[in-house]
Amino acid sequence: MENLGYYNGIFGLIEEMVIPMNDRVHFFGDGVYDATFSANHVVYLIEEHIDRFFNSAEQIKITIPHTKAEVKAILEEMAAMVEAEESFVYWQVTRGTAPRNHAFPDTKANFWITVTPFELRNIKERMALTAMEDTRHLHCNIKTLNLLPSVMASQKASEEECQETVFYRGDIVTECAHSNVSILKDGMLKTHPNDRYILPGIAKSHLIMACKALKIPVDETAFTMSEMEAADEIIVTSSSNFCSAVKTLKGRPVGGKAPKLIEVIQDYLVAEFRVYCGLE
Amino acid sequence: MENLGYYNGIFGLIEEMVIPMNDRVHFFGDGVYDATFSANHVVYLIEEHIDRFFNSAEQIKITIPHTKAEVKAILEEMAAMVEAEESFVYWQVTRGTAPRNHAFPDTKANFWITVTPFELRNIKERMALTAMEDTRHLHCNIKTLNLLPSVMASQKASEEECQETVFYRGDIVTECAHSNVSILKDGMLKTHPNDRYILPGIAKSHLIMACKALKIPVDETAFTMSEMEAADEIIVTSSSNFCSAVKTLKGRPVGGKAPKLIEVIQDYLVAEFRVYCGLE
Repeated sequence: MENLGYYNGIFGLIEEMVIPMNDRVHFFGDGVYDATFSANHVVYLIEEHIDRFFNSAEQIKITIPHTKAEVKAILEEMAAMVEAEESFVYWQVTRGTAPRNHAFPDTKANFWITVTPFELRNIKERMALTAMEDTRHLHCNIKTLNLLPSVMASQKASEEECQETVFYRGDIVTECAHSNVSILKDGMLKTHPNDRYILPGIAKSHLIMACKALKIPVDETAFTMSEMEAADEIIVTSSSNFCSAVKTLKGRPVGGKAPKLIEVIQDYLVAEFRVYCGLE
Repeated sequence: MENLGYYNGIFGLIEEMVIPMNDRVHFFGDGVYDATFSANHVVYLIEEHIDRFFNSAEQIKITIPHTKAEVKAILEEMAAMVEAEESFVYWQVTRGTAPRNHAFPDTKANFWITVTPFELRNIKERMALTAMEDTRHLHCNIKTLNLLPSVMASQKASEEECQETVFYRGDIVTECAHSNVSILKDGMLKTHPNDRYILPGIAKSHLIMACKALKIPVDETAFTMSEMEAADEIIVTSSSNFCSAVKTLKGRPVGGKAPKLIEVIQDYLVAEFRVYCGLE
């Protein structure tokens, strides 16, 4: 198949799939998701993503209608059915189908999947960033479907020919619209701690693991916009972008002072990915 | 019809209506809504709700694919087609149908309507409230479909056998999960100003108009939880609940010290509604 959609046991081309009007996602964004990609038809870091998915659902009291093993099996099956060499594997659960009413209905949750062709970003290409106030809710640790501020921030990046928008609360950098952001300064990695202000990024946790393996000290402490502007390097990570360095922030050159350290980290992360996906 | 759904020109029973999987509401909650009710097949305060709807859409840069006059005509037509004497009239616009990508697609927006039978709450019945921290995004002035914190707050109210949950930021009361909240103290109405922390409630604006007509002074200033606990009366308003007084907050008796003032305001608002809907 060219792409593949799934909703409660029904499969099909995404363009042909339909959802009942009373799915609560329509009125409340009442659900959570997770996503990764597959290469060589291997779904990268699938267990970690499924663990986070179940944790997100638990935080908003949605019971996923499958076990972790069942979710893994169906994601792997679907990734195998799509022809593309690299796919974006996305799944979500919504609270159920019931007439609109804020409080929880007494219904089973709905389970969705989409698998679409995808091209991994060239990790060596430096990114341009813009920035804006972080006005999101205080549940950024949960991968909810309430993503309007991220949509607006991504649109801002797109209009400014940037790849991401950095969010700040007061002067503190939290993360980006759909990525985490970290800095290198004096040979040390500094990155926001996992709390309700940021998503516990799986790529970020692998960046931290890579740094530890490479004897690069890691400081999980929030940093300010000024610290970011003065950093040796700014690093953006997401599940579809292991580790990109940054070239500009709001149009001004930033980073670029530790390119060899960036390369060592990138090479480590790419090697980890290639082994996992059986590309080596 | 028993109820009625509408999506981009297609009508039907809501239970039979379906939505394309790539509607952006599914992945981002990328849309805004408004709602009111109809009585005697007259859609109450329809122009004010449509004005707010267009304003919400503009705030997130969605172009509604109809004029205000077209939206009004179709809402009125649908309210007339549903048999119930009183209906909940709900409509929303989502940014369009396109493969998942945060930034805006180059597509036309989707327009949705649901009309369902509805029974107005007995305005004279006092409400029980609970309370929780307001962790919502800072766009509460926009009626977005990113409503998960309101879902969680409504569920809390339901579990505690309350009718609403009061949100507070620090010690400041903002609003409720799906209502505004105001207080009466020493013969004066105090209510949160319209800013990004609350929805500019149409019922709230009519409460203010009623108070002004009744020579009750109005102070549009935020108040604290302690002020609310010590108020003569607490008033909850929403589009389906013109003006309810409160009997308990977190299980403790509150208000009840100005029942005659409550009654005068309620009678004014009910009379306004009955005249508008041709019930007098």
